[in-house]
Amino acid sequence: MTTTRPLAGLHVVECASFVAGPTGGLTLVQLGADVIRVDPIGGGSDHLRWPVAPGGESYYWASLNKGKRSVAVDMRSREGQELVLALATASGTGRGILIDNVVGRPWLAHERLAARRPDLIHVRVQGHPDGRPAVDYTVNAEAGVPSITGGEDHAGPVNHVLPAWDLIAGLSVATGVLAALQQRARTGEGAFVELALSDVALAGVANLGWLSEAADRGGERPRHGNHVYGSFGVDFACRGGSRVMVVALTEGQWRALQSATGTVEVFQALEKALRADLRDETERYRLRETIAAILRPWFAARDLDEVGKELDAARVLWGRYRGMADLVADHRAGAHRVLADLTLPRGGSAVTARSPLRFDGDHGPAGECAELGRDTEAVLAEVLGLTAAEIGGLHDRRVIGPPADPNTERKAR
Amino acid sequence: MTTTRPLAGLHVVECASFVAGPTGGLTLVQLGADVIRVDPIGGGSDHLRWPVAPGGESYYWASLNKGKRSVAVDMRSREGQELVLALATASGTGRGILIDNVVGRPWLAHERLAARRPDLIHVRVQGHPDGRPAVDYTVNAEAGVPSITGGEDHAGPVNHVLPAWDLIAGLSVATGVLAALQQRARTGEGAFVELALSDVALAGVANLGWLSEAADRGGERPRHGNHVYGSFGVDFACRGGSRVMVVALTEGQWRALQSATGTVEVFQALEKALRADLRDETERYRLRETIAAILRPWFAARDLDEVGKELDAARVLWGRYRGMADLVADHRAGAHRVLADLTLPRGGSAVTARSPLRFDGDHGPAGECAELGRDTEAVLAEVLGLTAAEIGGLHDRRVIGPPADPNTERKAR
Repeated sequence: MTTTRPLAGLHVVECASFVAGPTGGLTLVQLGADVIRVDPIGGGSDHLRWPVAPGGESYYWASLNKGKRSVAVDMRSREGQELVLALATASGTGRGILIDNVVGRPWLAHERLAARRPDLIHVRVQGHPDGRPAVDYTVNAEAGVPSITGGEDHAGPVNHVLPAWDLIAGLSVATGVLAALQQRARTGEGAFVELALSDVALAGVANLGWLSEAADRGGERPRHGNHVYGSFGVDFACRGGSRVMVVALTEGQWRALQSATGTVEVFQALEKALRADLRDETERYRLRETIAAILRPWFAARDLDEVGKELDAARVLWGRYRGMADLVADHRAGAHRVLADLTLPRGGSAVTARSPLRFDGDHGPAGECAELGRDTEAVLAEVLGLTAAEIGGLHDRRVIGPPADPNTERKAR
Repeated sequence: MTTTRPLAGLHVVECASFVAGPTGGLTLVQLGADVIRVDPIGGGSDHLRWPVAPGGESYYWASLNKGKRSVAVDMRSREGQELVLALATASGTGRGILIDNVVGRPWLAHERLAARRPDLIHVRVQGHPDGRPAVDYTVNAEAGVPSITGGEDHAGPVNHVLPAWDLIAGLSVATGVLAALQQRARTGEGAFVELALSDVALAGVANLGWLSEAADRGGERPRHGNHVYGSFGVDFACRGGSRVMVVALTEGQWRALQSATGTVEVFQALEKALRADLRDETERYRLRETIAAILRPWFAARDLDEVGKELDAARVLWGRYRGMADLVADHRAGAHRVLADLTLPRGGSAVTARSPLRFDGDHGPAGECAELGRDTEAVLAEVLGLTAAEIGGLHDRRVIGPPADPNTERKAR
């Protein structure tokens, strides 16, 4: 078993904002890469994104950018742009890796970067593939998901709240960087890898077969509330009001559910009466309302503890609806190894996560959250070999930030 | 620019089902790896998963497993298990990579595999980290998302229909494989990488800051329908009924929205009257209903074409709500390079996707869909060096499938 993390030795520059690009960098940093995040002085437009701590710091920014080194640069200035270009294309085997979501800025055009380091790996997140902007909320609307979400009798779209396409794009960024490294190791060549959020969404719905089905139907499939599409799965209320999600995708799961709820004979009789074979998930889907209605009293007659015990004993596939506050309480009780506490730069603490990927049993560290620009001087000295005098000059010209307080400034020179 | 795909030379064995594991393999195969998918003879429990084509083939299975080579093996037999172990641990630089979601089966325990090939890369998808089963629908309930999804006055959970955690897990699998390869190239060591779907969901909500916020509130944040949380974004109906999603996360986007809708002075006056500063997204979130009410008549007075033209001219961030059937029509008109047509093994066609990652402008091929077990003989001959006689024996003993028809069978021997 290695004691270092899998991506030790890699150095990635991240010049991105909001969820997708930063999730890519977070994924890599949690696997052991050194990720240098470059922000405008004072922070980008995601720096105070909700949710925020009582003191005003963004839980969102802190969690998505923990573990990274923070460099703050005035990217509107020519000197600041030159610093970003130099960091992204610095020489070294594990260097020359850039993640950005900067579209339509000539100073960070891929050609300019590749001219400085031809084997650069450059992964760029876009809204649409033609460069038009888009965010999770707009591409989700365009991908058709809100029109099949929500209750059967709901009119109008139901947006998801989870920025799912952003998160999928973030993991795709990590995959793209690592695939390009594989290629660079084999051929010596770099790669310009573009990833449009809208393509991530289109690929998602296409790969699930949803577009093919709409083509057959010539329209949208019906909404089905909390039912699982094409099989049996739905939520039930227990005595006392707690709710559970119960799923029977396979024949074994369906047998388990009947057995736990004592309904084997009921469904046998029903199958006979309706000439249906409920071992077939298509039939379970067709008769989902009937099945749910038959099962509902069993759940209503038991509290959550009883339901859980009996379902587990019969190996039913189920989950309890939890609130986020419940998850925090579980975490405080030590329940989830993937979760961790994070100290915010100005004090206060957040609940954050380690990598869900356990390498040889180890989630790795969650990472610390840097105050914006904390590592600017150290990174410029280490990666670009700038002298203290040169760094002082950049400070004086306000090319790098944050404006150091006089004491720190004196020490740094 | 290379002419081969980035992951050329890698050989991955996939022994997984449903969405997460297969999405991992799909991601790798679309980037150029050779992925050998192993299924039970006749198909696993995901083989006929909805949606299905009129002829009964699964659009879902075909799309998630295209591009892969298909091997069908009776994994209940000792001989079949031995074939899977041998394929997963075959020697060669680009081999020794296994993706599975097989939990609690001693024959495929990691230790057994690692004993045969110590530098094996083995990525295993689980439900819960302790091995208890879970699927997207149950972990989503457990992660608290359904309780903050849907309309303000909705009671009870609103499940998402997108298996978002599965897709994120799938990309995490691809990332895990490639990170382990990076480590193997550096240290010569293999890795056992476990990934629990429930951890993927917990990490997702934690990294967005949602758990921290629930800890502060001591409970759940309110549902907010189609509004974007913590900023301004909501859907509007245009004249004729088409709907659009409009978002103003940044100050620039907010200025653009006011400018497009001719409401600059209205909001100036409102800010004065309410002593609010709507340049601050927190304030826009607080006053979201008021802002939406002021903007609504502008949308209602214009049809979609007019709305789109005027929003684009002012550079507003927006998207149109589309149906999946609309996306298919766009695809037929050549609109989306990421989408592709897929021929089903028994005829008929599906709409599927290429990789959203464009390496040097290229999405790569979508991949063909193999009939179940098509490549069994070729793979056993190529990877394990089995002779035609040995393969014939496996057929006779029904260890491999599908039962070849007599003509093919004669030729194969």
